[in-house]
Amino acid sequence: MATEQGQLPDAYDEVLEQFARVTYLSDGGSYLNWDQEVMMPDDGTPARAKQLSTISGVHHDLLTDDVVADGLDELDESELPQPQAAEVREVRRQYDRAAKVPRDLVERISEETSNALPVWKEAKAESDWSTFAPKVETLLDLKREYAEHIDPDADPYAVLFADYEPYLDLSVAEDVLTTLRDELVPLIDDIKASDTELADPFDGAYSDDTQMALCRSLLDTLGYDWDRGRIDVAPHPFSLGTQFDARVTTRFDEEDPVGAIGSTIHEFGHATYTLGLPQEHYGSPLGQHRGLTVHESQSRLMENHVGRSRAFWDLVTDDVNDHLGTEVTPQAGYEAANQIYPENRIRVEADELTYHMHIVLRFEIERDLLAGDLDVEEVPAVWNEKMEEYLGVTPDDDAEGCLQDIHWSHGSFGYFSTYSLGSVLAAQLFAAAEDDIADLDGKIRNGEFGPLHDWLTENVHAHGQRYETNDLVREATGSGFSADPFVEYATAKFGDLYDL
Amino acid sequence: MATEQGQLPDAYDEVLEQFARVTYLSDGGSYLNWDQEVMMPDDGTPARAKQLSTISGVHHDLLTDDVVADGLDELDESELPQPQAAEVREVRRQYDRAAKVPRDLVERISEETSNALPVWKEAKAESDWSTFAPKVETLLDLKREYAEHIDPDADPYAVLFADYEPYLDLSVAEDVLTTLRDELVPLIDDIKASDTELADPFDGAYSDDTQMALCRSLLDTLGYDWDRGRIDVAPHPFSLGTQFDARVTTRFDEEDPVGAIGSTIHEFGHATYTLGLPQEHYGSPLGQHRGLTVHESQSRLMENHVGRSRAFWDLVTDDVNDHLGTEVTPQAGYEAANQIYPENRIRVEADELTYHMHIVLRFEIERDLLAGDLDVEEVPAVWNEKMEEYLGVTPDDDAEGCLQDIHWSHGSFGYFSTYSLGSVLAAQLFAAAEDDIADLDGKIRNGEFGPLHDWLTENVHAHGQRYETNDLVREATGSGFSADPFVEYATAKFGDLYDL
Repeated sequence: MATEQGQLPDAYDEVLEQFARVTYLSDGGSYLNWDQEVMMPDDGTPARAKQLSTISGVHHDLLTDDVVADGLDELDESELPQPQAAEVREVRRQYDRAAKVPRDLVERISEETSNALPVWKEAKAESDWSTFAPKVETLLDLKREYAEHIDPDADPYAVLFADYEPYLDLSVAEDVLTTLRDELVPLIDDIKASDTELADPFDGAYSDDTQMALCRSLLDTLGYDWDRGRIDVAPHPFSLGTQFDARVTTRFDEEDPVGAIGSTIHEFGHATYTLGLPQEHYGSPLGQHRGLTVHESQSRLMENHVGRSRAFWDLVTDDVNDHLGTEVTPQAGYEAANQIYPENRIRVEADELTYHMHIVLRFEIERDLLAGDLDVEEVPAVWNEKMEEYLGVTPDDDAEGCLQDIHWSHGSFGYFSTYSLGSVLAAQLFAAAEDDIADLDGKIRNGEFGPLHDWLTENVHAHGQRYETNDLVREATGSGFSADPFVEYATAKFGDLYDL
Repeated sequence: MATEQGQLPDAYDEVLEQFARVTYLSDGGSYLNWDQEVMMPDDGTPARAKQLSTISGVHHDLLTDDVVADGLDELDESELPQPQAAEVREVRRQYDRAAKVPRDLVERISEETSNALPVWKEAKAESDWSTFAPKVETLLDLKREYAEHIDPDADPYAVLFADYEPYLDLSVAEDVLTTLRDELVPLIDDIKASDTELADPFDGAYSDDTQMALCRSLLDTLGYDWDRGRIDVAPHPFSLGTQFDARVTTRFDEEDPVGAIGSTIHEFGHATYTLGLPQEHYGSPLGQHRGLTVHESQSRLMENHVGRSRAFWDLVTDDVNDHLGTEVTPQAGYEAANQIYPENRIRVEADELTYHMHIVLRFEIERDLLAGDLDVEEVPAVWNEKMEEYLGVTPDDDAEGCLQDIHWSHGSFGYFSTYSLGSVLAAQLFAAAEDDIADLDGKIRNGEFGPLHDWLTENVHAHGQRYETNDLVREATGSGFSADPFVEYATAKFGDLYDL
């Protein structure tokens, strides 16, 4: 078996070189998305839509170019050494999907999503689903067409899901969501019935500037590399970038600094994954993230297992008090970060348990929309029914109901379940890290994030797309993907907090 | 002659459709340049260089695609109606140049310029030409190679100049610079010899925030459309964008608020041109600017003929005083904005007269560099000699000498003379506007910028690339391109100010 670069077939070099161009172009486009959501003046949309749809079309052309098609024909992964075989596997996967979809459709989807973004913003501001509904209808049609091209015999929702998580079957997502519903609903009911009330000490109004200064300070504590990152405000927080420049965004509610802390640490987790991808493999699948399940595991690990731990609040409470002018104890901060409040209607503000009910709801609605079993105009009513069923609350209006998330304006149907998959994987990875790192809890309490950071880099980030999702999980934890560690962790933590 | 869209040949539609994709891609890239200079974290450069060089290469491929080549072969401008003939003329011009240059060279130039930017920044911060010199050497070699591909028999400097100003011969630039030197040097000498001293009333220290608030207020007064623009800080101010989103940047020196005002109004002039390009022609040459001479005429017209007028200072002095906490009179503000100070070493801080000596110096150095008559390592010595010769001053170090401008890091050799050409054209256009608009001076004094804005839109902006530069000037002013109006204007204004 050839193992040296010089013995690899020419086709390998040709395919990977072209794939690098695809990556560079697509990364360039991603910073234009960042700009659109963070910096672009309001009326810039029509031109930006053209720019991004052209990039999407060119991306498609480059990826499906003969140099890739012919090169892949010549290559056989089973005859290649690792990690080159993995690189070719990943290029082939992307090529196989892209080659089935016409460029025109790719460009239309891109342009429609750019144009849908301000319509969603406006509809949310006006709390009027009916103005956004036609865009959702259009995007659903386009995405159905897209899925039909890729596999006319498959469930279109499963086809779309594979864009976000290519190596776990949709049935895994269904199983995880079922497990979470079965396990968490009784736990949430127990908490509701409990007499224990957690501390809720941040009862002032905290300015955006104050909260931003605090978030920056916490990112310093966590070790964010400012030479390769930045933080800005966005209506719907996200992280985006490359291993050379991975940015985070956050948002502020003057009554909820704990929300901003959680959201910022969440996006920091995403950025840390991106920054941990090997720079020497930039442009290759080995320099790219392993899909949204693993990406979300990194954000949720930081947000929940670090940021919502008692050890972390022991570390940062003084700093929080200094910034906010409060006199909160570490235990009170810890409790504030772990409040379970089923009455919340907003997914991104949800606690660790009810969060997953928000995902179940979206998963069910999206599946019905894609299958044509639910009309777009019926979404607000169905949304509100399910909120009542799963959480016992009804949104006051569409803005805090079915218009709350940005995803549908991006045409991202099939995305949401990766949030639950990632949360579950976060618990599994953190448990493995705890096994490997002596006194991880004490290290967090002391602000020693190096060992955790190194563990994540070594076991997750540095691999890029070398392993399929399940294999990555097995390499890192010694066992297959499982929701059990999350259920154990949640049951123990909230059982303790709420004296169950 | 066919005049309706339906009667145009198919090749016209095919060529223009492809050219629109070229434009969208290139505009997308331009916002990545904005990001690199304004927002990007320091260590993002290697990835950004790859993204931009890929876009440059794809831009080249799309522009030289068979659909353009074959379409242009079929089309004959003389048989097309206007403005379609002008569109095809402009696509042909760009195609003819691009087709002669290999994509690989285009990509190398792009990547080298992206990588040169941080090296220039660092060299300037350290005031050390020797660290930047290798990059200049590399870029000179690449640009010589580029010019050689386009026309091996032409003066390479003239070939490069045509990238910035395609329709004025380099001899026009030489003539203008000669005229400016011949006319302005005696005027500057007279001013030096004059006993008159202009007021210099801004002698405090003004914070960045204070100056930014003032600049924003002045842009409000001038009518900047914030829904299609934004202002940020950049080490080397610039404006960039499309008719949907044209941004400005500025910078601050705590001792020089008048400098920030001038720089901001200058970039506002550029943005106003961009925003005045017809939106319905976005993607066509009719929706693109007419080259850097005309672009600079719009910035200089706003900076000098509006922002450095007594009428403007009558309008804004109260606002300036409110922001800066000063008690300056309109006459004192006007004088401060019109100080002639040959001892200044920085082009972008130069007054209206000595400015052109900075251009002459760069023009001469660049020509000698391109021709191989000057070694890169000799630049600092030659720069300083010429400063002494033309302005009677010697820079203290390279940072305020040959490292002051960003342009060489962009590989933009041949660019500078368009600054003088634009300044001269600004005077010519403003004189024509004064002829056409009753009491333009009074209108500026009253803050009525609508008529001037409309005149510029109608006579310059709305045409995009419909006319060649000289024809545009003739359409707008009734006469050919001329430096005379500038000389008359400068002689009268400074003669009056300095009692000559």
